[in-house]
Amino acid sequence: MQGGNPAEAPLNPGIVFQILQAHQSTAALKAAIDLDVFRAVGEGPGDVASIARHCKASERGIRILCDYLVIQCLLVKEGNSYKHTPSSAAFLDPRSPSSLASIAQFLGNRALREPYERLAEIVRTGRTVMEGDGTVEPENPIWVQFAETMGPMMAPMAEPLGRVVLDGHMGPMRVLDIAAGHGLFGIEIAKQNPQAHVTGLDWAPVLRVALKHAEQAGVHDRYNMLPGSAFDVNFGGPYDAVLLTNFLHHFDKPTCMSLLRKVHASLKKGGRAATLEFVPNEDRVSPPMPAAFSLTMLATTAAGDAYTFGDLRAMYDEAGFHDVTAHPIPMSPHTIVIGHA
Amino acid sequence: MQGGNPAEAPLNPGIVFQILQAHQSTAALKAAIDLDVFRAVGEGPGDVASIARHCKASERGIRILCDYLVIQCLLVKEGNSYKHTPSSAAFLDPRSPSSLASIAQFLGNRALREPYERLAEIVRTGRTVMEGDGTVEPENPIWVQFAETMGPMMAPMAEPLGRVVLDGHMGPMRVLDIAAGHGLFGIEIAKQNPQAHVTGLDWAPVLRVALKHAEQAGVHDRYNMLPGSAFDVNFGGPYDAVLLTNFLHHFDKPTCMSLLRKVHASLKKGGRAATLEFVPNEDRVSPPMPAAFSLTMLATTAAGDAYTFGDLRAMYDEAGFHDVTAHPIPMSPHTIVIGHA
Repeated sequence: MQGGNPAEAPLNPGIVFQILQAHQSTAALKAAIDLDVFRAVGEGPGDVASIARHCKASERGIRILCDYLVIQCLLVKEGNSYKHTPSSAAFLDPRSPSSLASIAQFLGNRALREPYERLAEIVRTGRTVMEGDGTVEPENPIWVQFAETMGPMMAPMAEPLGRVVLDGHMGPMRVLDIAAGHGLFGIEIAKQNPQAHVTGLDWAPVLRVALKHAEQAGVHDRYNMLPGSAFDVNFGGPYDAVLLTNFLHHFDKPTCMSLLRKVHASLKKGGRAATLEFVPNEDRVSPPMPAAFSLTMLATTAAGDAYTFGDLRAMYDEAGFHDVTAHPIPMSPHTIVIGHA
Repeated sequence: MQGGNPAEAPLNPGIVFQILQAHQSTAALKAAIDLDVFRAVGEGPGDVASIARHCKASERGIRILCDYLVIQCLLVKEGNSYKHTPSSAAFLDPRSPSSLASIAQFLGNRALREPYERLAEIVRTGRTVMEGDGTVEPENPIWVQFAETMGPMMAPMAEPLGRVVLDGHMGPMRVLDIAAGHGLFGIEIAKQNPQAHVTGLDWAPVLRVALKHAEQAGVHDRYNMLPGSAFDVNFGGPYDAVLLTNFLHHFDKPTCMSLLRKVHASLKKGGRAATLEFVPNEDRVSPPMPAAFSLTMLATTAAGDAYTFGDLRAMYDEAGFHDVTAHPIPMSPHTIVIGHA
């Protein structure tokens, strides 16, 4: 039906049933990751009995789960054996260097999922049912889990972000990475420019994860830590560049603007602020992944949103930036937005 | 990418992210139904402020929820207004005679959804984490909710089922409807054959819902009630036809066969037993909807399954039936299977 005129297609109630059952696909993928099904399939031979043995699970359970994963295009079935799809081999087999299996721990975190059980109430009030400011409450432990598990999803964004932020600039440079999390973005700047010194800002337990990643990348001698809240700590500076990745979407526009003003004040003249965000088109319903992210912000924050480039440019302008440009990252739902101080 | 060779398509990790977030689409549709969003959209004018007013909800919440429904192809957006798609007008607007909105109450029932939070454990043990036999525990109140809410989804199956079961036979006839639920299938037989007498068998509180539907259809003078468990009560008879709809999938094969033998014994020579089931192909992974139903049985029963036609025919044969035939219902995930005593 893709590309056809939906008004002319026969009406099919299946879409209602399928969406009401879609929660099962999330549960099935999470269970398969938790049970190590994708490793068992990758190691072969892929029949029910050997997968069940590897996963210490019942054959009935494994047969039904693996059939369901085939229906969801997460495995293929040849006769009575299950094999990887190219995507499951790359992104779900824990033996793959590009495995994303760990992100199921953060995205499947019960604290982040429970608000959806009360979504009607959230739509009524217009804010999360989580206490206080939701996920951005001070010292929320989910950010340690984010830092520990979401790196594989964010890693492919680091190289293009580093390239856009540096834009060929080498030599001594000071960079502030606000809400550093896993730290991969600041670390990438340090890798691409051997004279860059990076300061990671986040809650102290989160920064310990970022520092571990800096050590693994061999750049920890140029990695400093500034623990605390981006709204409260003194940024120091002045900096050549400030990274503000996956952060603005948690807050309303006035809060974002006050933060952008503080960022502007910490930059050298001509320095750059770079956000990495889910940026929907101005229609707010496309492309699907960035646009859908608004719902996550509705469910888990007091006033966050997925901001369009128009929204972001207006906030940057208001905070004193100029030459604000958008750089979508191909094959990803993310866009880099750069402003100059 | 549809129709292409997946091995040649560029790898996109989006599928992993999308499936891990798919539970949001279930929550969004349920919230929209609970808030009466689809009626508000149908009545128009469809801007955020008027929908929010109708739903007694915040404008921020309504804007983000409706945008998300557009992304899920459950609404369309024109400028800043939301309109129905042909499918949402037909199946989600409560003013539509074919509205399916009520099925969200059964499919979204917390008791039926909670097992998915423990799906890895269920796959390990091979059976539901619900107590006893899960959904088929005696007098489980969910079947009253099923009878009250799932009728609109099952109603389109009634006409073809009645036609296949009667196969042109008119005149006096006795029909037993096992696990009658909403009662729509037995009621349809009584509507198609004015001399048919129907006996509905189910838990007593469920039969009260079936009787209400029989009254609404004007056939209650030919509708009898047999309260209790299909495994325990004396069926009486002999019958010309026995309906066994959406029931066998809850049980293992030996249990199904013992029930089919009891059905066979209650039929006149040449009488017919008719099941309505989710019947996947022998590969058990197609078509998607019937095949995926196995996971529901894994999560919510001790030993149920979506049986293939090969499975069902073998069970019918074993129970003494002959001339067992499958009749898929077009545009639905259901198949009627008929056996002759």
